[in-house]
Amino acid sequence: MKLNKNHIYDGLVTLTWKDDAVVLIDQTKLPNKLVYRTFRDYNDVARAIKKLMVRGAPAIGVAGAMGLALACIRSRANSKSDLVIELQHAYDVLRLTRPTAINLLWALERIMKISRRGKTVMEIKQKVVQEVQKMAEEDIEINRRMGKIGSGLFRDGETVMTHCNAGSLATVGYGTALGVIRAVKESGKSIKVIATETRPVLQGSRLTAFELQHDGIDVSLVPDTGVGILMARGVIKRIIVGADRILRTGHVFNKIGTYQIATLARAHNIPFYVAAPLSTFDFKSNVEDVVIEERDSKEVSTMAGKRIVPRGIHIFNPAFDITPPNLITAIITEKGLLKQPLYKAIRNIFRVYGTQHGD
Amino acid sequence: MKLNKNHIYDGLVTLTWKDDAVVLIDQTKLPNKLVYRTFRDYNDVARAIKKLMVRGAPAIGVAGAMGLALACIRSRANSKSDLVIELQHAYDVLRLTRPTAINLLWALERIMKISRRGKTVMEIKQKVVQEVQKMAEEDIEINRRMGKIGSGLFRDGETVMTHCNAGSLATVGYGTALGVIRAVKESGKSIKVIATETRPVLQGSRLTAFELQHDGIDVSLVPDTGVGILMARGVIKRIIVGADRILRTGHVFNKIGTYQIATLARAHNIPFYVAAPLSTFDFKSNVEDVVIEERDSKEVSTMAGKRIVPRGIHIFNPAFDITPPNLITAIITEKGLLKQPLYKAIRNIFRVYGTQHGD
Repeated sequence: MKLNKNHIYDGLVTLTWKDDAVVLIDQTKLPNKLVYRTFRDYNDVARAIKKLMVRGAPAIGVAGAMGLALACIRSRANSKSDLVIELQHAYDVLRLTRPTAINLLWALERIMKISRRGKTVMEIKQKVVQEVQKMAEEDIEINRRMGKIGSGLFRDGETVMTHCNAGSLATVGYGTALGVIRAVKESGKSIKVIATETRPVLQGSRLTAFELQHDGIDVSLVPDTGVGILMARGVIKRIIVGADRILRTGHVFNKIGTYQIATLARAHNIPFYVAAPLSTFDFKSNVEDVVIEERDSKEVSTMAGKRIVPRGIHIFNPAFDITPPNLITAIITEKGLLKQPLYKAIRNIFRVYGTQHGD
Repeated sequence: MKLNKNHIYDGLVTLTWKDDAVVLIDQTKLPNKLVYRTFRDYNDVARAIKKLMVRGAPAIGVAGAMGLALACIRSRANSKSDLVIELQHAYDVLRLTRPTAINLLWALERIMKISRRGKTVMEIKQKVVQEVQKMAEEDIEINRRMGKIGSGLFRDGETVMTHCNAGSLATVGYGTALGVIRAVKESGKSIKVIATETRPVLQGSRLTAFELQHDGIDVSLVPDTGVGILMARGVIKRIIVGADRILRTGHVFNKIGTYQIATLARAHNIPFYVAAPLSTFDFKSNVEDVVIEERDSKEVSTMAGKRIVPRGIHIFNPAFDITPPNLITAIITEKGLLKQPLYKAIRNIFRVYGTQHGD
């Protein structure tokens, strides 16, 4: 599936707005089947987000916005005020699907703003659809810019580690962390990637391995237990991951396991980078305000329908953890590289480009 | 299955010598089924070790010795020298099943010594069978002693983390690391255990959770990616693991993932203990001499027969890693606690009790 006429990107496109519907890759079927699903009801989009058919902070954001656009074009409201009330309801349903990634909130707010600004039902419907299409295109452009900025950090021939999936499949296309890796390759440097399995949902095994292989990038896999030994052997030169939310202090909320990889990277003196668009930053919250989603224990206790844990065992299954700023070498954004001290770099960049979330 | 008349231990018994056969729990069927298998041919015992039906350094040792005992009693050799040649062949087959755990070598050597010392075929057969029965009993007694020595390190009400399975199922019974946890409970202190899943073979999910639940010990499970966040939250007070081989320098070879847990423990100032009998020590080898077993990539790429990784992806699957002595708070043995500097403590204890392997 090609994205658009400009051919700015010809890799996998995770979700698109097409013929008044949302078309997305069902990621629960990967790596065995590449299945596209079409949604016309925002409730189905909400369920798809909850079930991880679509996941990754930027992709969830655009999927949520497209869900809201579905609610908008399907609405039978006769007045602007009735439409906005309906949208507010859909907003709540979509917002509550996943609590940690901030891009969802950012994207939903952006659509609500458009709808509040419109004068007629017709105008709102038209503008909202235009906006979600724009957001999808912007997402890829932002990732491309991040890629260019980040690629300068990597030397020819390096082996790098990534965790979870911060790729095409976590965005509309191209990816954040994997976008940087794509850009390194496009710049003519060779690069090898080691993906962690990323238990319990195995985004590394199922998604990162799949999409890098799809694009002809050298990728190997290691169980999450093998991170330390590969670092000790000197195999890994750099780490790059995405983010689900970054606070003004520089604390990064990302997939469970990120924090320990960052801690191990520090112990082995390996640079640790985060690649995330400005829409991932949250200027309002403090660390203790952010809800870390605790997911169903079945993700850990069963595999392909088979029990792998005895019944009645308590399971910890937080989906995210928190990496403190002192463990992060730099954050790569579409507006530039944020270096230490991160809180100052974050403050400066948002002084120039404006904060995304309230403030 | 109860072990013996003295009732020294009434938990799970992983392997026994019974009616001229080896009876062992098929651990590949856990946690869903508790299946005992009976072997009369040492080649089948070798296959059972390779397939991880029986695993854990001390259990592999006794299983190997029992395999050699099967070769011995089934032999039709008419002379001592013919018998010893046959045993040497069986020794080679059993020895090559798993390269990293040293207890296997130790146990096989012990049986070979007995057979070389015997005068007649009849006497050798009798002595070898006596010896493997003695080794099985000794294993539990040693674990009990380790438990008593180690339990003093734990305070009432603590939550501790363990990795892989160093329990009843890794020994004949009672366990090394989990033996210490059992002893803490028997001493009247309360203890909660957090077991790591331990990818790729999931010994934590399948075995540690199973055997601690079986014995009524409070056990929770966490994916290997969740170790860091639990440490950061202050949940974990101590770590205790087993070992597959310990060098005279104090370097510990143990299940993949141990090294990173030890590194994370150090970063969070959490004591890290290793529980292992003297038969786990290797006085001959240097770090670079020890072969770290690289296991079949299918352990990582498939789950319950279903592919979870695209075809053609290279997979790192080392079964063990190396924890350097500086990350280890103490090693618990049946002869006492070994504290820092470990190389001195190890030298001293072997001066008193003798080295197990050559030297």
